[in-house]
Amino acid sequence: MDAAVYQNRINRVRAEMRKGGIDLFLVSPSSNLFYLSGYGVNGDERLLLLVLPAEAEPGSPQAEPGSPQAEPFVLANLLYKDQVEVLPVKEFVFWKDGEDPLALLKWEIEKRNFPAGKIAVEPQLPAFFSLPMAERFPQAAFTLGSPLTDPLRLYKDPGEIELIRRACKFSDQALAVVIEKGNYWLGKTEAEFCEELTAALRRLGVMAYGAIVAAGANGAVPHHVTGQSLIEKGKGLLIDFGGRLKGYHTDCTRTFHFGAPGVEFEKIYNTVLEAHLAAEAKARPGNLLGDVDDAARQVIEKAGYGPYFTHRTGHGLGIDGHEGVSAAKGETTPIAQGMVFSIEPGIYLPGRLGVRIENLVAIGREGPEVLHAFPRELKII
Amino acid sequence: MDAAVYQNRINRVRAEMRKGGIDLFLVSPSSNLFYLSGYGVNGDERLLLLVLPAEAEPGSPQAEPGSPQAEPFVLANLLYKDQVEVLPVKEFVFWKDGEDPLALLKWEIEKRNFPAGKIAVEPQLPAFFSLPMAERFPQAAFTLGSPLTDPLRLYKDPGEIELIRRACKFSDQALAVVIEKGNYWLGKTEAEFCEELTAALRRLGVMAYGAIVAAGANGAVPHHVTGQSLIEKGKGLLIDFGGRLKGYHTDCTRTFHFGAPGVEFEKIYNTVLEAHLAAEAKARPGNLLGDVDDAARQVIEKAGYGPYFTHRTGHGLGIDGHEGVSAAKGETTPIAQGMVFSIEPGIYLPGRLGVRIENLVAIGREGPEVLHAFPRELKII
Repeated sequence: MDAAVYQNRINRVRAEMRKGGIDLFLVSPSSNLFYLSGYGVNGDERLLLLVLPAEAEPGSPQAEPGSPQAEPFVLANLLYKDQVEVLPVKEFVFWKDGEDPLALLKWEIEKRNFPAGKIAVEPQLPAFFSLPMAERFPQAAFTLGSPLTDPLRLYKDPGEIELIRRACKFSDQALAVVIEKGNYWLGKTEAEFCEELTAALRRLGVMAYGAIVAAGANGAVPHHVTGQSLIEKGKGLLIDFGGRLKGYHTDCTRTFHFGAPGVEFEKIYNTVLEAHLAAEAKARPGNLLGDVDDAARQVIEKAGYGPYFTHRTGHGLGIDGHEGVSAAKGETTPIAQGMVFSIEPGIYLPGRLGVRIENLVAIGREGPEVLHAFPRELKII
Repeated sequence: MDAAVYQNRINRVRAEMRKGGIDLFLVSPSSNLFYLSGYGVNGDERLLLLVLPAEAEPGSPQAEPGSPQAEPFVLANLLYKDQVEVLPVKEFVFWKDGEDPLALLKWEIEKRNFPAGKIAVEPQLPAFFSLPMAERFPQAAFTLGSPLTDPLRLYKDPGEIELIRRACKFSDQALAVVIEKGNYWLGKTEAEFCEELTAALRRLGVMAYGAIVAAGANGAVPHHVTGQSLIEKGKGLLIDFGGRLKGYHTDCTRTFHFGAPGVEFEKIYNTVLEAHLAAEAKARPGNLLGDVDDAARQVIEKAGYGPYFTHRTGHGLGIDGHEGVSAAKGETTPIAQGMVFSIEPGIYLPGRLGVRIENLVAIGREGPEVLHAFPRELKII
C-alpha cells in the first residue's frame, strides 16, 4: 500500500481518539499495526509499540503541523531498528536488551507532555505487557483499542479487496491442482494432503501453514486437527484451507466424496448447498448480517438438521482470518459495501460425517461478489 | 507424554499457588497450557481456559480427594468439545457462540466457591480477554502466572530433552541436504533457500514455517526478514532456522561464504567461533548464566568488535522458541542440569556483513551436551 494510505488510516484513528476521549493508543505488533503501518513482523517478548496520541483539538496550538505534542512515535528494541523504520512516523525511541522498555515508555510520554488519562491498548497485547503497564500508569484507565480500528477495518478499500480476490483465485487454483489427483489420495493421510495443498498455495504466493483436512467422520469436528487419519473410499473429505497474500486472507471449504455417497451424505450435502445459496442471496446491502445466518439456518432446520449446524454461518475476515462482524443469529449490523465475509454453513453428525461449503464474498454496491469460482456442487472422486 | 506427567505438573503448579497465595490460575492456549496438558491448539477469539484452583490446605476438608472444591475445570466453546477432551481434568464447561463466556466463568467459579481474590493469568492472554476479565472480577488482584510455570519449565525432564535432541539432529540433516547443493544457490533468492530448507525440515517431521536467511549485508540485521535478495558469490549467507518437533523447538545458526572470503570476514568468523567455544566451555553446573555471556563477549571485545555484538549470547528454549532465563550480561541464575539454551554470539557490521554461530546445549550433570553436530568451522562454498 502507498504510504499515504497508512497516514490516512492513522489520522482517522487519531481523530476517533479525540472524539472518544482517548489520550493514547498503544499499538503492538498485530493486524492493527499492519493495517495502520504495513509493519507485519510478529511480536515477541521485546516490547514494540506504535504510540499514537489523539489528534489535537482543532484550533489549539497543538494542532499546528509539526508541533512536537502531536507526533506519534515508535518504541522498539534496537535489534529491530532496520525493520521498524518502514513505520510511517517521524520519531523512533530505541531500547536495548537489559533496559526496561516500560520505564522508557513512561519517560517518553511524560517528556512529550502527552496526556495519558485514558489509554487504549492493542487487543492482542499479551498480559505480560498489559499487567506491568497498568502498574506503571496507575492513574490511567485502560481500554481496548478495538473501537478505534474495527469500524475502519470492517469496510475494505478496493486495494484490500483486490488482494483478497487474488488470494481466493489462487486458492481455487491450488485446490484444483491437488484434488485433480483423484484416487491417488486413497490411503494417503490427511497430513499428506494438507502438505501438498499448502505447498501448492505457497508456490502461488499464498502463505499457508496448515489446513483442516478431515477424512470421513473427522469431518464432523468443525475445527478438526489434521492428522494421520487415512483418506478412504466410501467416505467424505472436508478441506477448510486458506492463507495470506500480502497480509490478506483467503478462506474456503469444500467437501468431496470418494466413491458413490450414501443417500444420507447426499441429502446432507444438498441441504448444506441449498443453505449456502440461500445465505448468499441475502448477502447484499439493505439486509442485516443476521439475515444471512437466518437464511442458512432455516434451510437446515427445515431439513431436520438444525441441531447439527453448530456454528455461525460466516465471519468477517481480512488481515485477520476472523475479524469484524459475524454473519450470526441476531447480528443487526447492516450489510454494506466493502464488507468481506465467509458463508459457510455445515452439518455435522458426530462420529459419522460432516459437510461444509464455504466461500468468501465481498459486498458491492448491488450485492455480493463471490470471490471463489471453485464449483460448489458435490464432486464425487 | 504420559497423562501422569501432566497430572504431576498441574499438581506442582497448584502446590506453588497455595504457597504463593494465588487462588486461581487461568491458563489460556499457550505454551504453558501445552506444558500442563498437552493441548497444543492455538488460541483464537473464543475464550478457552484451564481453570486451576490452588491446592487445598493439607489437612483441610477440601484436601480430601474428589472434593468438588478441589477440581480444576476447562471452559471452552462447544465447537472445541472433541479437542479439549484430551485435557487432564474431570470437569468441562461449554459455552456456545452468542453466549458470554466471561459471565459463565464467573458463575462457575462462584458455584464452586472457589476463592478468587488473587488470580494469576496466562502471560499470553490477550488484552481482549484480560481487560474485560478484570471488569468482571473487580475485587480480584491480577498477576502473571509466569512465576508458577517458569521455574518448572526451566529444567527440562529427560523426555523433553530427548525431543529437543531429535529436533536438533533433524535440523542438522535438513541443513546438510540443502547446503550440499552448493553453487546451485548462486543467483537464487533468500526466500527460495528458506522454502527448501523448511520443506526439508517438514519432511523430517520438524514443523518449520520460516527461517532467517540473510544474504550478504543482510546478515548484519540480526532479525532480518527473509526476502528477495540474491545469494551471491563473494558474500556470506547467514541461516538461522528451526522448528518444532512434537511441540519442542530446535534453533540453529550457521554462516557460510560463497567463494573465498576476504580477510575481514575470516577474522570476524574466527572471532565469533572462538567466542562461541569460550561460551560453551562455561556452560556447566557451577557457573552462572552470565558467565556464558561474559566469556563470549570478552573474546569479541578483545578482537575489537565489542560494539558489533548487539545481543545476548543465548536464550533458553523448549516449548517456546525463547523461554526461561537468558545467557545475558549480569544474569545470576546458576546453570543447572536440565537447562536447555542457545549459544549464539555474532558480529554485525551494518550494511556490510554479519556472522553468527548458534548451537543448542542441554546441561547435564557434568557439563553441556551440544545438541547440534553440524560443523561450526567456516564452510566455503
